[in-house]
Amino acid sequence: MLGSLPSFARLVAELSKLPGIGGKTATRLAFHLLRRSDADVEALATALVEMKRNLSFCRRCFNISEGEFCRICSDMGRDDSCLCVVQEPQDLIAIERSHGYRGRYHVLHGVLSPLNGVGPEDLKIAQLFERLKTEEVAEVLLATSFTIEGEATALYLSRLLKEVGIKVTRPAHGIPLGSDLEYIDSATVQLAIDSRREL
Amino acid sequence: MLGSLPSFARLVAELSKLPGIGGKTATRLAFHLLRRSDADVEALATALVEMKRNLSFCRRCFNISEGEFCRICSDMGRDDSCLCVVQEPQDLIAIERSHGYRGRYHVLHGVLSPLNGVGPEDLKIAQLFERLKTEEVAEVLLATSFTIEGEATALYLSRLLKEVGIKVTRPAHGIPLGSDLEYIDSATVQLAIDSRREL
Repeated sequence: MLGSLPSFARLVAELSKLPGIGGKTATRLAFHLLRRSDADVEALATALVEMKRNLSFCRRCFNISEGEFCRICSDMGRDDSCLCVVQEPQDLIAIERSHGYRGRYHVLHGVLSPLNGVGPEDLKIAQLFERLKTEEVAEVLLATSFTIEGEATALYLSRLLKEVGIKVTRPAHGIPLGSDLEYIDSATVQLAIDSRREL
Repeated sequence: MLGSLPSFARLVAELSKLPGIGGKTATRLAFHLLRRSDADVEALATALVEMKRNLSFCRRCFNISEGEFCRICSDMGRDDSCLCVVQEPQDLIAIERSHGYRGRYHVLHGVLSPLNGVGPEDLKIAQLFERLKTEEVAEVLLATSFTIEGEATALYLSRLLKEVGIKVTRPAHGIPLGSDLEYIDSATVQLAIDSRREL
């Protein structure tokens, strides 16, 4: 049936390439778009092309940016002495949203993953050490994910960083705010008790 | 953070308008698209615009079509004496996929839904009766959904169709193939037993 509708079939095929969107969802989205006005669909198409045209990565920290340098690197009010290393730009956004950090960032664009063939040369690690040569950084906060690969990447980086004499930190483990002990995994509970604080 | 990336924020906003896609999924999709090649994103944008440009509805049956008349209406080999009334083009595709029907179609583009303000004048009902005046139709197969609104629409149409002396049918209820009686709702089981066949 869709064979007689090449432009519909092509849209379904393109939408199916998006992560988490299979053939059925893609068909449903295509039918939805068919019912939307020309202007609405045009707006989505333009947003796609404009995003690709305007966005690139910051030359200094590899955060996403609309210019040569990102908003954080261009901000003179940030603390130059602390550098937070994150996995993806999404993680940077999450930390910014918390308003808990005023230093600079460095985005690795991945984690070490030997099984998937991702080695140190595939991440922005050389660029991190280049920065440390010219910037006055006293502390590197390693905020890669708390997964096996994220922990391994943090461990790898912490060794290299200690060799060049830089203080290395990692965000604390513990019980998330507003959560019920009953529903927290026992490894996290154990870590939270190990790192208990005196009130 | 996204405030400093207007073209990224705009893409997230446009993607969030799609059904079943909230802010978080839209952000995830936008980050995915950011990593895809320019050509890939361009292909999706082009597919969107081309689909809107090329697709319209068949002048006769209101199925989606790339020309004035859809593939089925243009097919001389179909049985003109039977007309299958469906809710949406998706339903027509599902019936075609079954290879169980060789007649023509009429797409209503909705069902009667007084609560949502959808009356007979909002559907392609007048156009259906126009067709019946000029086409030699012996039977109308009402294949609207088996929901309350779909059943009500079928009932409404069957009354009008019987008045003009046309045979009206509806697909049979029963147990779907390959299913376990245990997991079928009891109303369906009851209908299947009521319409039992002698072997």
